[in-house]
Formats: sequence, structure tokens, C-alpha cells
Amino acid sequence: MDCLIWTLSRLEKKQLFAKVRKECFVDCGQRLLNCYSFFSDLSLPFSSTLRLLTISQKQYRSVLSQFHDKNPKNDRTDSKGKEKILIGSLVAGIFGGYFYFYKQKNVAIAERKKTGFGAQARAGKFREDLPIYSLDEVDKHTANDNRIWVTYKEGVYDITDFIEGHPGGDQIMMAAGSSVEPFWMLYGIHENEHVYEILETMRIGNLSKQDQDQMTSDMDDPYANDPKRHVILKPASVKPFNAESPLVLLCENFITPNELFYVRNHLPVPDIDPKSYALEVEVEGHNRWLTLTLEDLKRLPRHTITATIMCAGNRRSEMTKIKPVKGLNWGAAAIGNATWTGVRLRDVLERVGVTENEEKLKHVQFEGADFDVAANNYGASIPLWRAVAARGDVLLAYEMNGVPIPRDHGFPIRVLVPGVVGARNVKWLTKVVVSEKESRSHWQQNDYKGFSPSTDWDTVDFKKSPAIQELPVISAICKPCDGDTVEVERGHIAVKGYAWSGGGQKIVRVDVSADRGETWHVASLDVQDSAEPPRHWAWTLWSVRVPVVGGSEEAEIWAKAVDSSYNTQPESFANIWNLRGVLGNAYHRVTVRLATPP
Amino acid sequence: MDCLIWTLSRLEKKQLFAKVRKECFVDCGQRLLNCYSFFSDLSLPFSSTLRLLTISQKQYRSVLSQFHDKNPKNDRTDSKGKEKILIGSLVAGIFGGYFYFYKQKNVAIAERKKTGFGAQARAGKFREDLPIYSLDEVDKHTANDNRIWVTYKEGVYDITDFIEGHPGGDQIMMAAGSSVEPFWMLYGIHENEHVYEILETMRIGNLSKQDQDQMTSDMDDPYANDPKRHVILKPASVKPFNAESPLVLLCENFITPNELFYVRNHLPVPDIDPKSYALEVEVEGHNRWLTLTLEDLKRLPRHTITATIMCAGNRRSEMTKIKPVKGLNWGAAAIGNATWTGVRLRDVLERVGVTENEEKLKHVQFEGADFDVAANNYGASIPLWRAVAARGDVLLAYEMNGVPIPRDHGFPIRVLVPGVVGARNVKWLTKVVVSEKESRSHWQQNDYKGFSPSTDWDTVDFKKSPAIQELPVISAICKPCDGDTVEVERGHIAVKGYAWSGGGQKIVRVDVSADRGETWHVASLDVQDSAEPPRHWAWTLWSVRVPVVGGSEEAEIWAKAVDSSYNTQPESFANIWNLRGVLGNAYHRVTVRLATPP
Repeated sequence: MDCLIWTLSRLEKKQLFAKVRKECFVDCGQRLLNCYSFFSDLSLPFSSTLRLLTISQKQYRSVLSQFHDKNPKNDRTDSKGKEKILIGSLVAGIFGGYFYFYKQKNVAIAERKKTGFGAQARAGKFREDLPIYSLDEVDKHTANDNRIWVTYKEGVYDITDFIEGHPGGDQIMMAAGSSVEPFWMLYGIHENEHVYEILETMRIGNLSKQDQDQMTSDMDDPYANDPKRHVILKPASVKPFNAESPLVLLCENFITPNELFYVRNHLPVPDIDPKSYALEVEVEGHNRWLTLTLEDLKRLPRHTITATIMCAGNRRSEMTKIKPVKGLNWGAAAIGNATWTGVRLRDVLERVGVTENEEKLKHVQFEGADFDVAANNYGASIPLWRAVAARGDVLLAYEMNGVPIPRDHGFPIRVLVPGVVGARNVKWLTKVVVSEKESRSHWQQNDYKGFSPSTDWDTVDFKKSPAIQELPVISAICKPCDGDTVEVERGHIAVKGYAWSGGGQKIVRVDVSADRGETWHVASLDVQDSAEPPRHWAWTLWSVRVPVVGGSEEAEIWAKAVDSSYNTQPESFANIWNLRGVLGNAYHRVTVRLATPP
Repeated sequence: MDCLIWTLSRLEKKQLFAKVRKECFVDCGQRLLNCYSFFSDLSLPFSSTLRLLTISQKQYRSVLSQFHDKNPKNDRTDSKGKEKILIGSLVAGIFGGYFYFYKQKNVAIAERKKTGFGAQARAGKFREDLPIYSLDEVDKHTANDNRIWVTYKEGVYDITDFIEGHPGGDQIMMAAGSSVEPFWMLYGIHENEHVYEILETMRIGNLSKQDQDQMTSDMDDPYANDPKRHVILKPASVKPFNAESPLVLLCENFITPNELFYVRNHLPVPDIDPKSYALEVEVEGHNRWLTLTLEDLKRLPRHTITATIMCAGNRRSEMTKIKPVKGLNWGAAAIGNATWTGVRLRDVLERVGVTENEEKLKHVQFEGADFDVAANNYGASIPLWRAVAARGDVLLAYEMNGVPIPRDHGFPIRVLVPGVVGARNVKWLTKVVVSEKESRSHWQQNDYKGFSPSTDWDTVDFKKSPAIQELPVISAICKPCDGDTVEVERGHIAVKGYAWSGGGQKIVRVDVSADRGETWHVASLDVQDSAEPPRHWAWTLWSVRVPVVGGSEEAEIWAKAVDSSYNTQPESFANIWNLRGVLGNAYHRVTVRLATPP
């Protein structure tokens, strides 16, 4: 991706930052409008303008030539250069806002740094043995022929030879001639000792003190407007906010209270005014579209379901023990069960003429109001058959457990695709596109996919795996937790947990063992909704009393679930390990100490 | 079940055998008609008559009293007794036909017996130390108050105290006062050393020589009219015929030729005249029904799919190695892939007013023309949602791979429920009933269900598990076979096989390891149809070249598949073992000897 952004000077970026940021960093509907007016002098539709942000140099020139044809009397002497500035600056401005972060890193990270351990603590520190460069100097190094430089805190680095091996691909070029810090804040994966070690191997100099100060001035924290959260939520990352509740609370209620429901945000939380909210629905290539306000949506038939949502990375922390993976270090609580009320997507699609009989169009793409440093909105898609299926129950939901969907969960509208991985349940929904193609978003194409245990970052080809949709069968022991001391009553201990399967499958059995699979005890399925496959969307809470060997001081408890297609969980993480740490549905195993009352 | 059959004398059974057998043991439609006329003097509808065969004594008396009300002038002096004879004789007659078997046991069994090993060889042999009884005497022992006796070859047994513990439940009472042999022929599970051992513990006497001869006279072999089969088919049982082709042939073609397609028969193969064939379609409790001839069916829109069918017991022989199970000893070839042409069940149901909007009725029951010794037709059911789903593709098929469905596979009509266990794909279909309830057949209620590994025949409760419908993901290595010697080429060996998953899921990856899971090699998915979930009904043929450790003489190859819901196979059979030996989808493992060319 030959993104334009690295051809712009720091000055150009800064000049237009305030204006772009002010006009664009609002809710998506409003933003579209504002940005359109901002770029109206280019006589290009806004969608084309947005597309410019990521097109190649060649495509860019072609669009510009169209522009010149349309504006022959444009009196700018260096219009080509200025347009480049304008367009590029939109991107620059949007991600410029993230610069402020490094002054505001969250307490946990700051504290870790205070301890001064390892590569992370040393990275970017002033080094007496290296020369000092100004930002302007760094800024000249944005292409291979003149080497590519970046900064991190006080350090200057030449990353030219690293680019090809960067696991995140060309995205790294966004930081060329500039600081990597906003990107690393956005993509938490970089916060890793190994990454800091690699970085320092590319160290070539120090950044001038004056420029360090300049970089931190007059910039906002895009996460400053995130909602307040309940303190019980245990963050896996703070910006963006990702958190789960304590596992032990999870199986206390069939319905997870909104405040305890795990939060999975990829980006800052948009703040959408429900009065000006508008949902665009489009049938690609058919010139059929529709715009619906929140009130319009609420006037359509109301539909309520109870459904579990789970993050593909739930239980990643167990998989990591086999071998490190890239992703948030989730425990087993990146899952929750709620009632969702809204309008059936199928009813909305019917209004643009898309029904179960549709043959050619295969996907429904969703776009959220949240967007990244390159102005890519969060996006995902699901197969069309699922969206229009009579028993598919795909919702555009406006209520969660009887109240308007909280901001963290997608206010005012989120997609609810029951039985399908959380990542496709797009929050802050602003656009629905029926298309022949899947969503082109990073999260559909290059993330949320499964791979063989022997596939690593050198061999991975994201094109070769399908995007995760329906999730496999899973279970977890919620109580006792790993390391707990448990009271033995008449030779037994009490165990409880959850089980769930994607695709509307029902849990038909949960087996629990306290002797490493020698004997299995069938758990009681305590709470389960009455729906049958293919519409069994909610999880099952289960409990069982398992005998333990008399006199033992410790027991390892295993749980595995079986769903209505009689699929069951794999035994261990070793053979399902994958580089992104998703789909971690091996047996859940907890080790507890046994206390026998006198 | 207080079945009437054991209240009849042997004489009564024999007297009516010939007539009932002649008139009833034909194709189902014809049989219904014949039997109706046979029982017309009772002025009862045939369905009630059939029901009489399994009702309780109390219900029986109630029906008889209705009959007397309707026939006040009946001049029979002992009409009650005679009706009992008539009704009971229908059953007796039907199963009487199986008596001839013990003269005709298949060669394999006979040869095993010649070797004279074990309990089976000793069972039923004349014993000098015990008294001799006549059949009439045995026949008096048909109820608990007078003890319950049965015969096996020359032996007489008192089974009164065993009945409660009989794994097959009350079915055993069918043999009270008579021989168990026809039942044991029908239910091959009895051919087991352990069963013969138990039998001999109940031995009380010998059967008179004269009666032994009498039992074998003038009776037909109900399997005599079974079709001829290709010699390549390797039988798991001969009567009924169950057989698979050699595994190595299976992955040679995406489409399995009809002659090599595994055969799973529960009973003798009906011989149906297509000209008189009639399919009854009924909506229970709604007085809506329809009768369709074969020509009627063929006039409905024609639909073709490519779909794999698999027996729930495929790969049972591997599970048995953990601990014995009850069921046919299938290898990994009780599976096949074919094109099926017929009419959509959904189109047929629409004609009786059942559509996707149906709320109350939940199941579609199927009945085959094949029936057991108690005149129970083979039956099964599927959920209604599946039958009417737009993308469900459930067929009433009349062609298999472009020709009329062969007799072994259900001529003239079989149900094809793609993605669902073979047992629901009812052959020789004669009846479709849309109902609030599942099929009440033994095969739906007390068979083809999964259980926990710790559930045994003492603790099993068939009501607690759902009938298997969609099957879990599975794979098998077809080449090399276990024990083969394989040539090593440049450090690699070639491996190929099949993979499949139920419910329309697609195979997205097959991983193969030759070092016990240390490294996994992603197989090439060589043949796969282009359909996407939820309509991906056909299997996937795969191949891979796997490196082996230099200098090794042996390698253990493992294969596991991943489907589009990212469900994967469990590692070993130990933790999925179940007493019926179904759902055996653990990793497939074969051990081969390695030959390195000089």
C-alpha cells in the first residue's frame, strides 16, 4: 500500500490538523457530512475522497487528473501539491490526535516502566554514543531511496531493512519520518519486550529535546471521551478499552448485567448523537439504497432474542502458555449473555429488495463509526444467507437487557449476529452494504482467522483461511478458579461454569473429570433457554459435584462440552495453537487445593 | 411393553404363519392393503390393528370391547380368544419367517463355530445332566408368575431374573416361550462370547429332538430376496447386510460409485414394485394428507445435490480398542459421496400446507418399507425447520449418481438429509408424517445417541440424550493403510484421505503429522465442491507429502480436520468413547513401515 501520508512533511501535517480533527472526529454520520463539505472544493464525492487515503500513488494521480478535468479554471498555481497536502492531511490530522498518548499512558504501563526492567524500559532512552537529529531531518527519510526513519521517545531508528519483515505489513509505513508511538498505542501488540529489543537493534540516533516537546503540544487524547466503566472490569488493555469481569461472577446469572459484560473495543468509542444518527443501507451495483434514522428503525417490527457474544480470543491466556501468541491476554470471561432487542436485518434488507432468493450477492458488510489512524472504519461482513435466513435472527439491536445499548456496546445500533464471533457484531453501525464481496477491512481480511499450529509469522498467508464466523463449542469452569482452595464435602467438590457453541447449536452435555479423564461426571445443565437448534443462541450454565481422591491435597478439574451436532472440545491447546491465539476451546483445566474439614 | 405375542401358543403362531407371511411380507404399500383386508372382519382401521401389536393387555381389552360393541351379532363362541390369535399371529407370522436362519447362518459365522472355541461353540449343546422339555412345555412359560423360558438350539433357559437387566429392554419378551434365535439373527449384537456365557448361566434343560426339527420346517429366509452385491464390499454383517468398500478405494473418486457405496441395512431389503408404489404424506392432527405415486413425485421440480452420507458408527473399530462397544465393527469406510436427484421435501410439504412459517409442528417423521419381527417399520425423524429450510436441500431422492436408486440404497425413494447422520436418511420411504413429536421408533429413541464415556449399560438413560442429527467434523487417512509399507521419497511419504463435517459445514483445513503432533503439515484440499456453508454437503478429498525422520523404520501418521465453524476433531477415542460406539471422530492414526529406496 503506497499510502500518501508519508510523502507529507511534518509541517503540512500539523498545519491542517486542528481543522480536520475538529470537523472530522465526531460521529460518523455527521463526519461524513462535514468532511464532504470540507472536500467539496475538490468536486469529488466524499467516498472517493476517503478512498484516496489508502490508494496507491498511481491511483492517486489518476483521480487527480479527473479532478483537473472537472476544474479546468482552478487558479491554484501548485494545485497538485496542495491537494496532496489537503488529502494527506486528513489522514495526518486524524491520527495526529493520538500523539498525545505518550504523556498519558495508563497507570499500569507507567508502573511497569518505573520498575525499569527489560528492553521496554531501556528503549528510546538518550544514548551518548549517537548523533542528535531534528524532526525535520527525520521527516526527510520517508522512502527507500533515502532510507526510512522513525522515532520512539528520544530515539531515532532506521527501519528500512525491517519493513519487509514487519508482521503488520505495510502499515508500518504510516510512521515513516515520524513517531511510532501513536501506532503502538493503538496497536497494543507492540507492548512486548521482544518488540523493544528489535527496535533498539535499529537505533541510529537521538531526537532533539526541542522536537520532543513540540510533538506533545496541542494534541488531544482520542480516548478522552470514552465512557466510564465499572471498576470490576479487569482491563486487558486500556486504550482501546478491552476488559472482562472476574470469571467467578460470570456464572452467577444467566443474563450478564451490562456493567459486567466484557468490552472489546478496537478503537476509541464514538459519541453518537441519536437525533442525527443515520444508517445507510446499500445494495452494491444495483443503485438501491436507503437511509434510516434511529426513529425509522424503531418503527420496524421489534424483535428480541437472548444471545451470547464471545470474543474469538477468549481464553487466549491459556493458549499463550504453549507458545506466545499476538493478541489481548484474555482470560475465560471474554464472553457474556444478554437479551437484545432491535429490528431484524432481514426486514431491513427486504426494503432494499434483498430476500432469501438473492443469488448473486453473497455478503453483507457492516461499517462502524469507529475508525483508525488511516481513517479506516471498523468493518466486518457476514454471509448473506445468514442475514436473510428465516431462522437467522440477525438484529440491528438498539437495546441490551432492556435499556438502550450502552456506548461501550455500540450505542445507538450494533449488529447482533447470534452464534457468530463477536468481531462481526459491529458496534456503532453506520453502514450496511449488500455485496458480492466480503468486507475489505483489516479485521475481516487479516485478522480473526484460524491457522495450523505450525503456521508462524514467516509462513502465514491470511488469504488462505476463511474469516471466522460461527464459533466452535467451548466451556469453562467459573468456580472454583485456578489456585483456589476448595472445601471437600463428603468426598466431593462443587464445580460450576458455562458452555456454549456457535451457529445456534445447543449444549447437550458437559462432562467434568477430577482424575484426568479416568472418569467423567455429567453436569446438570442448570440454566438453558428453551430454543432448539438452529436458534439456540444463549449459553448454558452448568454445575456438578465431582468426587475427589480421599487424602489428596490437590485436584485438577477438567471440563468439556458437547453440542447438538455432537462436536466436542479438543483436549489440549498444543494441537490447536495458532499465531493469533484465537479459537481457544480446548478442555478447561483448573488446579485447586483441597481442604477437608476436620 | 406387555406385548401380546407371548400369550399365544406355538400352535397358534404356526397355524397362521403361512397366510400372514404370504399376504404381508411384500412391499409396504401393498402390505397395508392386504393386511387391512385380512383384518377387515374386525371392523378396525388397519392403523389400529397395527397398533394392537404393541399395546398393553389393558389397551388390548379396551380395543376388543370396542370391537364387540361394533359386532354385537358376531357368532363366534370364543371370539375374544380367536381375535387374540389373529392379531398376535400377525406378529408371530412376520417374525416366524426368521426362524429358518439358524440353518442358513453365513459362512463366516459357521466357520468360526467349526473351530469350536469359547462360549459360543458350547452354547445350546445337549447336556446329559439336565431334563428334556417339549416346545409345548416351554410355551407355557411366558409370564413372571410361571417363570419365563426361552430356547436356543438344544438348550432351554429360564430368563425371568435376567429380563430387568437386558440391555435391549423389554424387547426380550418377544422370545418368551419360544426361541431367541431369530431375534439374535436380526440383532447381531448378540453374537458375542460374553452373551453366550451369560445365556448358559440360565440353562435349565434340553429341547426335545422332535421339536427342534419342527421349528426348522417350512420357513423362509426373509433375506433370501436381498439384492446381489459387489464382491468388493466387505461385510460387517450379512443378515442384515452391512458392508463397506476397502478404505484405499474410497479416496480415489470424489463420487463414490454405487457398487462401492457402503450399505447399512437394519432389516431385509424390501422389494418394491415402482408401479404400485405410493407415498403417504400426513400432517398429524390437521386432517391434511396426500398420497403420491412415483410418477407424481417425478412430476414435481427436480433437484440435484452432491452429498456425503455417513453411518454414525463409522470408525467404530477404532473406538472398540479403548473398550468394547455394541455395534457393527465398521472401519473408516462407512461413508460415501454421491449425487442425488429427487424432489425437495419442502416442495412436497408445501402441498400439504406446511411451510417455513409453521410454528407448532416440530418434526418430520419418516417410515421405511422395511420392518422388524414386531412389525415395527424402520423409522426416524428430523426437525421440521430443516425439512422446510430454503437452504436445507432435503430430498426425496429417486436417483443416485444418475441412475434409479439401487435397492440396497432405498429403491424407489429414499430420504436424503444432507449433513445429517445416515440413520435419518430413511430408505424405501413409504410415509412422511409432520408431527409435534419425534419418531417413536427404536432407532430414533433408543439408538443413535451419544453418551459420556463413563455411561455404561447399567446407567444409560436413552431419554437423556438427543437423537443424533448433524454429525461432527471427521477425517480419515485412506492411503496408506495401517500396517502398509510405504516408500520414502526424498524424506517424505505421500498421504491422502477424506474429510467431512455435518450441518453443511465446509472443510477449511486438514492437518497431518508424522511426529505425533510436534509439527503439522497443511494438506492440499484436492477436490471439494464449490458450495459454501450452510450447503456444503460433500466431502473433501485431500493429500499431503509429510516428512519423516531419516532412518526411522516406522511412522505414525495423524490426521485431523477443521471445519468452517472451526470445530476440530478430538485427539483420542478415550474421552469420546460411548457405549454404542457412535460419533468416532478422534484423530485418525495409522502406523506404517517405511521403505527407503537404496
